[in-house]
Amino acid sequence: MKQIESVKEFGGWLNRYEHESTSCHCKMTFSVYLPPQAATEKVPALYWLSGLTCTDDNVRTKAGAQRYAAELGFALVMPDTSPRGDAVADIPERYDLGKGAGFYLNATQAPWAQHYQMYDYINVELPELIEAHLPLVPGLKSISGHSMGGHGALICALKEPGRYRSVSAFSPICHPVKAPWGEVCFSTYLGDDKNLWQQYDATELVKAGHKPMPALIDQGTADEFLAEQLLPQDFVAACVQQGVSIQLRMQDGYDHSYHFVASFIGEHLAYHARALRT
Amino acid sequence: MKQIESVKEFGGWLNRYEHESTSCHCKMTFSVYLPPQAATEKVPALYWLSGLTCTDDNVRTKAGAQRYAAELGFALVMPDTSPRGDAVADIPERYDLGKGAGFYLNATQAPWAQHYQMYDYINVELPELIEAHLPLVPGLKSISGHSMGGHGALICALKEPGRYRSVSAFSPICHPVKAPWGEVCFSTYLGDDKNLWQQYDATELVKAGHKPMPALIDQGTADEFLAEQLLPQDFVAACVQQGVSIQLRMQDGYDHSYHFVASFIGEHLAYHARALRT
Repeated sequence: MKQIESVKEFGGWLNRYEHESTSCHCKMTFSVYLPPQAATEKVPALYWLSGLTCTDDNVRTKAGAQRYAAELGFALVMPDTSPRGDAVADIPERYDLGKGAGFYLNATQAPWAQHYQMYDYINVELPELIEAHLPLVPGLKSISGHSMGGHGALICALKEPGRYRSVSAFSPICHPVKAPWGEVCFSTYLGDDKNLWQQYDATELVKAGHKPMPALIDQGTADEFLAEQLLPQDFVAACVQQGVSIQLRMQDGYDHSYHFVASFIGEHLAYHARALRT
Repeated sequence: MKQIESVKEFGGWLNRYEHESTSCHCKMTFSVYLPPQAATEKVPALYWLSGLTCTDDNVRTKAGAQRYAAELGFALVMPDTSPRGDAVADIPERYDLGKGAGFYLNATQAPWAQHYQMYDYINVELPELIEAHLPLVPGLKSISGHSMGGHGALICALKEPGRYRSVSAFSPICHPVKAPWGEVCFSTYLGDDKNLWQQYDATELVKAGHKPMPALIDQGTADEFLAEQLLPQDFVAACVQQGVSIQLRMQDGYDHSYHFVASFIGEHLAYHARALRT
C-alpha cells in the first residue's frame, strides 16, 4: 500500500492510501485517521462503512469523528464503497447500482463478480493489509456505518462473530430484501436465488439465528428514506422474536444527512470505546 | 428573507436563507445555525467569513463548529463570499478574483462596484436583517473566519470598534497589499489608489493606529500559502510596534485545510463565548 496524502488533524494524522486489491482486482483507495496515541503505541480501530454515492472522503470531511477518535485513542478506517476504475462494471446513470453502491457483498453474477467482492475486502483483505503496515492492535476492532454502510456494518457483525467487538449504525438499510435499493442491487449482483440474498440481509440473518453483539442504531424520524428503504422496525421485530439485545434510538426531527451523523457520532464512538477497552 | 432549507443538528437547526441584498444588488444566500437554546431565548451570534472559492456550505459541512455552538448556546452566521448571479461581474477562469473572492470590501471600480459591496453587506445589512427575523440578541456578536475570511474578520474588527465583542482567525491573509492574492483583487476592485487598499488591510490598519480587541489567530506551519500569501509575521510586527495585544499560535504541522480549522474550532468558539458572555 502507498500513502498518497497526509493531513494533520486533532494532533493525529488523516492519511489516504491506495493499493492493488486482490479481492476486488482493482486499485482501491481508503483513508485512516491515526490518533495522536498511535505515534507511540498500537491502537484499536473503528471501521466506518459509508453509504450510496460516497467514497472515503465523505465521512472524513463531514462526520466530525476525528475529534472523538483523538480523544479516545483509536483509529478510524474509512474504506471506499465499491471497486473503482475503468475496468469495473457500472451503470453510470444509476446512483444506487454499480460504482459507489457495492452493498458490502460478494457478487456472484457476471459482469459484477469479477470486482464486486466488497465483503471479503472489508472483512479480510483490508484488515490484514493495514494491521501489517499501521500501528493497529491486530484484531481489536469495531464497525459502524451510515445507510448502505449501516447495512454493511450490521451484516459484517452478524456474519463474523468474534471479528468485531461492537457494532453501531446510522440510518441503516435494515431489511434490503424488502426494500427497493436492496432488491435492485441484490438481484443484479446475486441473481435470483433469494436464499443468497438473505445471507446479506441483517433482518433475515437475525431471523436465521445469527446473534449480534449488543448493537446501537440511531435513526432520524424525518429521514426521507425511512418508510420505504430502511425498515428498522423489521430488524427490531426479528431481534425481539429471537430474544436478542438491540438498541434503536428514533431521533426526533433528524434527516438522513451527515448533519444527523455528526450530531450523534460522539456517542457512537464512546460506545465503541467501551467495547474496545474491555 | 426566505428560509429555503432546515436540517436538525445537535438539537438545533441548521437553516439556509435567501434574500435580495440591497448592498450587493443581487440575491444572496446564507446559513444560520440556531442552537437548541434559541428555541426559548435570544442568543448571541458568531459570524464566520469563509475563504476563496467557498460558499456558506463549506464551513457548515466541514468545520464541526455546530457541536460547540450547541453546547455554548450561540448562533453561527455563515454568509457567502461574494455577490452571485448571472448579472454579477466575474472572471470564471480565476478562482481568486470575482465570484467566490469578494475579499469583504466595497469595490469602487466598474464593473465590480455595482455588486461587490461585501463590507457593507457583512457589517450592516446582514446583521440588521437577521436580528429582525431570528432569535438573536441585537448587537451581541463576534467574528471569525478562514484565509480570505480571516482577513475579513480582522478588518471588520479593526474598522468597526464596538461592533464585535471578539475576533479570531484561521490562516488569515494578514497583509494583502503585499501578497499576490490581495494585490490582484485590490487593484481590480479598488483601482490604483493604495491609500484605499490600506483601508482593507489588517496590518496597515494596525500601523495606522486602529486597535484590535484581543484577537486570536491560529496558523499552521505546514500551510502551503503561509510564506507567500498570509504573512502573519507582518501583522504581529505591526501589533508589537503599536503596543497592541495579539495572540498568534503557530500550530506545528497543520496545513491550510478545514481539517486544521476543525482541530481548533472548539477553542475558538470557547474564546468567543467568554467575550460574548461578559
